[in-house]
Amino acid sequence: MPLLTMKFGGTSVSDMERMRAAASKIKREVDRGYNVIAVISAMGDTTNNLVGLVEGTSSLFDAREYDAVISTGESLASALMALVLQDLDVPARSWQGWQVPVRTTSAHGTARITGIETKGLQAKFAEGMKVAVAAGFQGVSPEGRIATLGRGGSDTSAVAFATAFNCERCDIYTDVDGVYTADPRLVANARKLEKISYEEMLELASLGAKVLQTRSVELAMRYKVRLCVRSSFNDNSGTLVCDEEDIMEQNIVSGIAQSLDEAKISILSVEDRPGVAEAVFGSLADSGVNVDMIIQTISERKLTDMTFTCPVSQVERAVNALRTARERGSVGFRDLSADTDVCKVSVVGIGMRSHTGVATKMFGALAKKDINIKAISTSEIKISVLVDRIHMERAVRALHDEFDLETAT
Amino acid sequence: MPLLTMKFGGTSVSDMERMRAAASKIKREVDRGYNVIAVISAMGDTTNNLVGLVEGTSSLFDAREYDAVISTGESLASALMALVLQDLDVPARSWQGWQVPVRTTSAHGTARITGIETKGLQAKFAEGMKVAVAAGFQGVSPEGRIATLGRGGSDTSAVAFATAFNCERCDIYTDVDGVYTADPRLVANARKLEKISYEEMLELASLGAKVLQTRSVELAMRYKVRLCVRSSFNDNSGTLVCDEEDIMEQNIVSGIAQSLDEAKISILSVEDRPGVAEAVFGSLADSGVNVDMIIQTISERKLTDMTFTCPVSQVERAVNALRTARERGSVGFRDLSADTDVCKVSVVGIGMRSHTGVATKMFGALAKKDINIKAISTSEIKISVLVDRIHMERAVRALHDEFDLETAT
Repeated sequence: MPLLTMKFGGTSVSDMERMRAAASKIKREVDRGYNVIAVISAMGDTTNNLVGLVEGTSSLFDAREYDAVISTGESLASALMALVLQDLDVPARSWQGWQVPVRTTSAHGTARITGIETKGLQAKFAEGMKVAVAAGFQGVSPEGRIATLGRGGSDTSAVAFATAFNCERCDIYTDVDGVYTADPRLVANARKLEKISYEEMLELASLGAKVLQTRSVELAMRYKVRLCVRSSFNDNSGTLVCDEEDIMEQNIVSGIAQSLDEAKISILSVEDRPGVAEAVFGSLADSGVNVDMIIQTISERKLTDMTFTCPVSQVERAVNALRTARERGSVGFRDLSADTDVCKVSVVGIGMRSHTGVATKMFGALAKKDINIKAISTSEIKISVLVDRIHMERAVRALHDEFDLETAT
Repeated sequence: MPLLTMKFGGTSVSDMERMRAAASKIKREVDRGYNVIAVISAMGDTTNNLVGLVEGTSSLFDAREYDAVISTGESLASALMALVLQDLDVPARSWQGWQVPVRTTSAHGTARITGIETKGLQAKFAEGMKVAVAAGFQGVSPEGRIATLGRGGSDTSAVAFATAFNCERCDIYTDVDGVYTADPRLVANARKLEKISYEEMLELASLGAKVLQTRSVELAMRYKVRLCVRSSFNDNSGTLVCDEEDIMEQNIVSGIAQSLDEAKISILSVEDRPGVAEAVFGSLADSGVNVDMIIQTISERKLTDMTFTCPVSQVERAVNALRTARERGSVGFRDLSADTDVCKVSVVGIGMRSHTGVATKMFGALAKKDINIKAISTSEIKISVLVDRIHMERAVRALHDEFDLETAT
């Protein structure tokens, strides 16, 4: 019997009506002859509410108990889904992480899956079970404690199940019906992509597209799991995330992403001497700050200005790290300033590997709209620029037009 | 290190404030030198809400998934309690049923505990854990599924833990501060008992006193677990449920109980022949009707009337069973009538074993108040009468006065 993994996120199972809609999508695949591993997230806002309860107990809480609390959301949802499927006459049962078992590391709250035992489910499939409803986001540590995978971890659970069971496909059902060339809320003529490569999806996910969790795309890429992003609320075909080779025609640029979770920190009048960059970014790394873009202006009289970006939530940590470094004498600077009134806009496309001129075209399009670029970072298949937050929508639209993303090649 | 089991019911952990109050009671015992097994129920109305969700999926639901759903209430509450205890600097951790493990039968929804593994908890106590916060009401079946013990099952969980770990005492924290000579809401001068025997507690529990679940008292009696019923909301000493021999002075009557969950069914003009009682009560037993009191009136012309009582929820089942028996020809009768406008009032006391005249005194007291007795049942240590519901309060007060229960011997 061919196997399929189907993952339903929180908004897709937020109430009983939506759960029934999701169940009928599962039933349809069963009727087509598939056995299904359905990976279920917690209903609606459950996880946020549970996190609130934990935070109410103490500011410094035990991550193992945090995991025991928040995992109840997925345990509940998966058992309810099994009941709803049974009501549709689909032979289904729920599986909590420890029952499968899904084995994880002991890094509670951000655990990684180390393996999924297939025997238990296989035996039940052999006995006639059609759907194994697996609680997403959770597993069991070597110490026998419940461990969770971190926010959005159900995507990763789904890909891990698809890998372990060698599933034909891993369908991710969510509240959008695929991956778009840009956020449709910003760009009216954004186009849904039929296919996108793992590499591009990975860039888009880490650049702020909220469709898939970055880790799940990494995992899918490593094990060549065919991921399909689809809507829970309609029957559109969705977007297939697959190998580059499986995509016949490729635009040079596939999509535009934007992120507001970007802050710019400037360190002014830094003593310019060999090793100063190491001292600055070493102290930031030691404090766990994820630095993205870096700019260093030309130095005058042995003093230079340095600018970098990091996630908004890490600004305080970054500022503290730098002040501490100055007190210890490892870095000298006159002043520092943080600016969260910025955003990052990125163009992503595998075609950039073989085509030059993408950056020029991008910068030109922004210049035409009088949008000033405050920082730039690039990788092999993406170019990101930092601009004032007020320009975000105009920048995304300008780039979408410039690269003619409305039209498929 | 001496061990104590402390059980907290749903109203005792209904919000974070109450959870903190419960945690400080646990901490106090730890400070006195005890290691504690804290058995926790689901918070407030959680279980009812979860049952509602299950019932929303289907009218005929899989009891295994029902258990997977409702057990999340205790899993959540026990992990939160561990966090609250840790915040008070008490080394605590949560244990779900499968983690202990608490082994049960496969009778999902009404499972019985078959054993509790002690190794895991003992090892953690040896490493410095002071409180094992165990999720009440749940265990794991031989098939590795979550099984629950039925309503009020957390009391049974607590006694089972106290038995398995040979605890010095099993404290049941609830919303009343002990066992009273009568329901204090009905009888203003009801007196809290310092001690009560297992046998009496068992009668009171099954007669409608809601303080403890009947099964938990049975279990405590069998294994001689010293049960203490105490309030979560004050520091009163509570009531110790213990061996008869541990109670120095004993009133002849210890308490009065009343129950509204009693219906009277009369079968009129039954053919009076040998074997008819067997036929009537056999068909009721086959249908799962719990018959309590039975009255048969003197027969005339080969016809008799029979009256019995059963729980209100079983009236429909009883009526159907009798009609079916008549259709099949195994029982002949003219008519039947059901009356739920009645109540059962009982006096309970171990002293009855050695003292005569309790029944006479009881009937006399009710007669003085013009309360008509509609049925009677007795055991070695209790006498129950059925009266019209309208007389319930007056009957309970009259008996409380008659046996002078306000005053301890």
